[in-house]
Amino acid sequence: MSLLHLPHHDGSALFVSDEAPTLGDTVVVRVRTSASHPVDAVWLRTTYDAEPVYHPTTASTEGGVVWWAAELPVHNPVTHYRFLLVTGEEQEWLTGAGLVAHDVPDGADFRLAAYPAAPDWGRDGVVYQVFPDRFARSAAADSRELPDWALAAAWDDEVAFEGTDPRTPMQLFGGDLDGITEHLDHIERVGADILYTTPVFPGESNHRYNATTFTEVDPLLGGDAAYDRLSTAVHQRGWRILGDLTTNHTGDTHEWFLSASDDPTGPHRTYYYFDDDGTYACWMGHGTLPKVNHTDPDLRAAMVEGPDSVVGRWLRKPFDVDGWRIDVANMTGRLGPIDVAHDVARATRATAAALREDPWVIGEHNHDATGDVDGDGWHGTMNYSGFSWPVWSWVRDPASPARAFGRPVPVPRRGGQAVVDTFRAWQGTLGWRASANSWNILDSHDSARIRTVVGGDAAVHRVAVGLQFTLPGVPMVFAGDEIGLEGVNGEDARRTMPWHLSDEWDTTTMTAYADLARLRRSHPALRRGGLRWAHVDDDTIAHLREHPEGSVLVVARRAGGAAFTLPLAGATHLFGSEPGGADLVAGPDGLEVPASDGPRVDLWSVTTE
Amino acid sequence: MSLLHLPHHDGSALFVSDEAPTLGDTVVVRVRTSASHPVDAVWLRTTYDAEPVYHPTTASTEGGVVWWAAELPVHNPVTHYRFLLVTGEEQEWLTGAGLVAHDVPDGADFRLAAYPAAPDWGRDGVVYQVFPDRFARSAAADSRELPDWALAAAWDDEVAFEGTDPRTPMQLFGGDLDGITEHLDHIERVGADILYTTPVFPGESNHRYNATTFTEVDPLLGGDAAYDRLSTAVHQRGWRILGDLTTNHTGDTHEWFLSASDDPTGPHRTYYYFDDDGTYACWMGHGTLPKVNHTDPDLRAAMVEGPDSVVGRWLRKPFDVDGWRIDVANMTGRLGPIDVAHDVARATRATAAALREDPWVIGEHNHDATGDVDGDGWHGTMNYSGFSWPVWSWVRDPASPARAFGRPVPVPRRGGQAVVDTFRAWQGTLGWRASANSWNILDSHDSARIRTVVGGDAAVHRVAVGLQFTLPGVPMVFAGDEIGLEGVNGEDARRTMPWHLSDEWDTTTMTAYADLARLRRSHPALRRGGLRWAHVDDDTIAHLREHPEGSVLVVARRAGGAAFTLPLAGATHLFGSEPGGADLVAGPDGLEVPASDGPRVDLWSVTTE
Repeated sequence: MSLLHLPHHDGSALFVSDEAPTLGDTVVVRVRTSASHPVDAVWLRTTYDAEPVYHPTTASTEGGVVWWAAELPVHNPVTHYRFLLVTGEEQEWLTGAGLVAHDVPDGADFRLAAYPAAPDWGRDGVVYQVFPDRFARSAAADSRELPDWALAAAWDDEVAFEGTDPRTPMQLFGGDLDGITEHLDHIERVGADILYTTPVFPGESNHRYNATTFTEVDPLLGGDAAYDRLSTAVHQRGWRILGDLTTNHTGDTHEWFLSASDDPTGPHRTYYYFDDDGTYACWMGHGTLPKVNHTDPDLRAAMVEGPDSVVGRWLRKPFDVDGWRIDVANMTGRLGPIDVAHDVARATRATAAALREDPWVIGEHNHDATGDVDGDGWHGTMNYSGFSWPVWSWVRDPASPARAFGRPVPVPRRGGQAVVDTFRAWQGTLGWRASANSWNILDSHDSARIRTVVGGDAAVHRVAVGLQFTLPGVPMVFAGDEIGLEGVNGEDARRTMPWHLSDEWDTTTMTAYADLARLRRSHPALRRGGLRWAHVDDDTIAHLREHPEGSVLVVARRAGGAAFTLPLAGATHLFGSEPGGADLVAGPDGLEVPASDGPRVDLWSVTTE
Repeated sequence: MSLLHLPHHDGSALFVSDEAPTLGDTVVVRVRTSASHPVDAVWLRTTYDAEPVYHPTTASTEGGVVWWAAELPVHNPVTHYRFLLVTGEEQEWLTGAGLVAHDVPDGADFRLAAYPAAPDWGRDGVVYQVFPDRFARSAAADSRELPDWALAAAWDDEVAFEGTDPRTPMQLFGGDLDGITEHLDHIERVGADILYTTPVFPGESNHRYNATTFTEVDPLLGGDAAYDRLSTAVHQRGWRILGDLTTNHTGDTHEWFLSASDDPTGPHRTYYYFDDDGTYACWMGHGTLPKVNHTDPDLRAAMVEGPDSVVGRWLRKPFDVDGWRIDVANMTGRLGPIDVAHDVARATRATAAALREDPWVIGEHNHDATGDVDGDGWHGTMNYSGFSWPVWSWVRDPASPARAFGRPVPVPRRGGQAVVDTFRAWQGTLGWRASANSWNILDSHDSARIRTVVGGDAAVHRVAVGLQFTLPGVPMVFAGDEIGLEGVNGEDARRTMPWHLSDEWDTTTMTAYADLARLRRSHPALRRGGLRWAHVDDDTIAHLREHPEGSVLVVARRAGGAAFTLPLAGATHLFGSEPGGADLVAGPDGLEVPASDGPRVDLWSVTTE
């Protein structure tokens, strides 16, 4: 039996009549089953105030598909539901993590959130991440005087990236905001339309996650005026721009912290967690990054709450950001017995919603963001756990040293089924909406580069990009990935963009990014479609994104493999990461996806039952 | 390979150096692996403030077992952890739900709670549930005048149990508290030492979940004086007594509700959820059970918070209950967008802790109590989902109509592996401590009787009892189960105890309860031991409870089956639910557990590696 014959439901339009309901609404939810996996009856189970209740479904048949529809009252702000499938004496549950033949807790239930959805521009966009010091220098950079802490680096210098190298945070390559503005055409060529820069606040480091103030843009980057020029230029293209804020901590040279340190009775002392002996809580033991205290109303007002908070002020001119990427969102507001993390997320989102029509707020969570994302908290997360690590584990070169954050051993190389099981586990627990609004990242300024993960194999790199642009989630491209930059860890990944060496760029891969971005824009299925797994073996992951306006079949192969057959009627070729690839016509046994002698990813427009 | 060779960790003393740590403590946690499933390295992963961090382990070998130990800082009140097992290029996670070969979210992580543990008397006890109207009549019952709502029933009358029968809540059989007091010897013979009665407040029904007041004991039950006599008698035996409180609702004839209805501006109006038109929220649409409003500080003070609340008052003389079973705990404090359920649980527990040295608070949750139980909320739950339904699904007669609450179809009959998978899923998500403090119930006044679930087969009934008394959790016996009473649903299950027909009792089964209760008391392994699955097939579930003071092997067979071998050295027979059963001596291939020609459950004292 084909995977495509398995009973299925997800949060997309084919299965849910309203993806963004209001509390009290009734939404029609549907399950499809196939004659190849017949089912006698389907019940909708939901929980009202944590009490399970069952609703009947009504069946209707279309070709070989039976659609089971039920009315789901949206009783709680996050309404959980699942389906009970009865076949003879057998009972199975259909949950967000798939079919299961025994009773399981609710963690992977489907859910509908009665909170406003993330903005369309976010969910439908492609994010391009820039680490300002390394992206591009404007002419003005040459005349800037460097501060004492900085070690001037030439654009072609190697990045110091060993953990023990004291130069790592000090090397200043001099990229600036006007440099970015001058290269927006490049970003357009890659196909992105949302610019996300890591912090632009002054900070005594090249990464600027240790801000000295949140009130202005670092003069080394060109100051507020340069940010205004960049933001204006971005908006003139109809694009969006996101800021990056450390709600969890400041630098130890931050004006708040200096005041707090100097004056134990002063107004900023309660902004931080000082012990009686003057020690203070900080991020992961780094004394240079003191943790702020979100149980303090003044700190919360200063940082996230209200129009005059840092969150609020930058959403207005001259900065005019369209939203935020929140650094260390997972730890923000959490410290031992204290946990106000969700309050911080809620406040951040509410501040943004009050100031802009359609802001987007993404929380960095390198781990398990369940519960922080599907309600009124972050719209989504940087989906390392649910996307990056499983993709890495599928495509990695066994010799690559690339590690998931903190993990003491490299990500293991795993077969397709284990990887798809991982996708399902995370999609189930994050929920459909939060998964779709989270970032599909192959890497970032904090991790190894995908090109290094795959051992330098450009074809496999493109396979990973194929998954990045076609699985639910918003692609986020770390600047330089598109031309094949490498890096063994986050620091090494912060290499400069070699504008002057464009003849050495991997333009084949850059074209793949651009083509996939274009296809994502033109095919609603790739942005909004459902997700059914079509075929999985060790070296192949094939999935179907389905949408009322047309469906797309994606076949990703990390290595060569045999042909296989799918119960589909025909396929019009849209994209191949390698030469070859053609339209397909179904034979008597279905549609044969041809064998491949190497890694490749292909997209076809298909007709489904 | 034997299941006993799989890597293992659980929350018991062999694996955790302190089951009830304090915030800031360091606890040693250990994993055992076997030479038959070798592992190269084990890492402890925990989350600090939601950030994953890895700690190394130290290995030591004892015979064929490798013990991997690591220090776990108890950084958060509920500290999550799991283990990463590295074997060559392979990586597996060991979580509370077992081994998994792909990355999964944290829902089933092991966890340590830095809150006071449940009282020993609760965790180590055996609960006997009495539905007062049906247990026993004292002589005084004959002279009581019945209220208007009541339909007098003779002790041998059939219970009206069809959902549509208006007599169901009105039939009054006249059991009372002195009746219970007079039959404590019976409860002692069954082996229980904790008496839990369903509500004793006056209510215009035989079940009394629709209280008219919380200030006194129903005169129909003998009033406060009779409760005092019962409570005193229970305590004189060194036993404990638990009350039953509807924190979710009152009756519509409750004094608070009458006041609230009569006077929209009066002090009780905010105790309930009244709409402007006078309609009000109620339990599951039943207008006779108006839901109380725990967002109202006055209601919360009246119901659960402080010494003068209902929760508090009954913990003192003359009632002197040792704790509470909280009705509908899952819905308490939850209504649409409102969710203060955890606050209610926390307040209830805090009130109890302030008034008694070692109170026990169990929340009724017929579904998924995850998150409500492993911190400072309920000590445990009535574990229908994690115990009752999986046991039912293993032992049920296919013809039995018994259903899980609300489920529109009977519980399916499933093989041993699916049932063990269910146990693991729930143990993983509830956590070790909460599972161990929750109630293993084969039925209750709300469900079909186990004897009916198994189609009247007494031997299979005893197999279920074997699991009830040997799996982690506290056995709760619904009065009458021990003598083989039947009932197709909760109402039918509320049959009277046929004291006058004791020659018709199933004394074989009653002896099994008593023997198992005695063994549970004498073998720490059965109360406090770890849990490793030893052998699972469709008709057999064998597990090992391990404890430093000695381990117990349990082999439960729902039907006859073949012999199998376990890697154990010897076994001293402790209990057999059917004739036969003997000490076992290991041969060269291990210990052979003999075949059986029918259902039975046996316990052996064993020596493990």
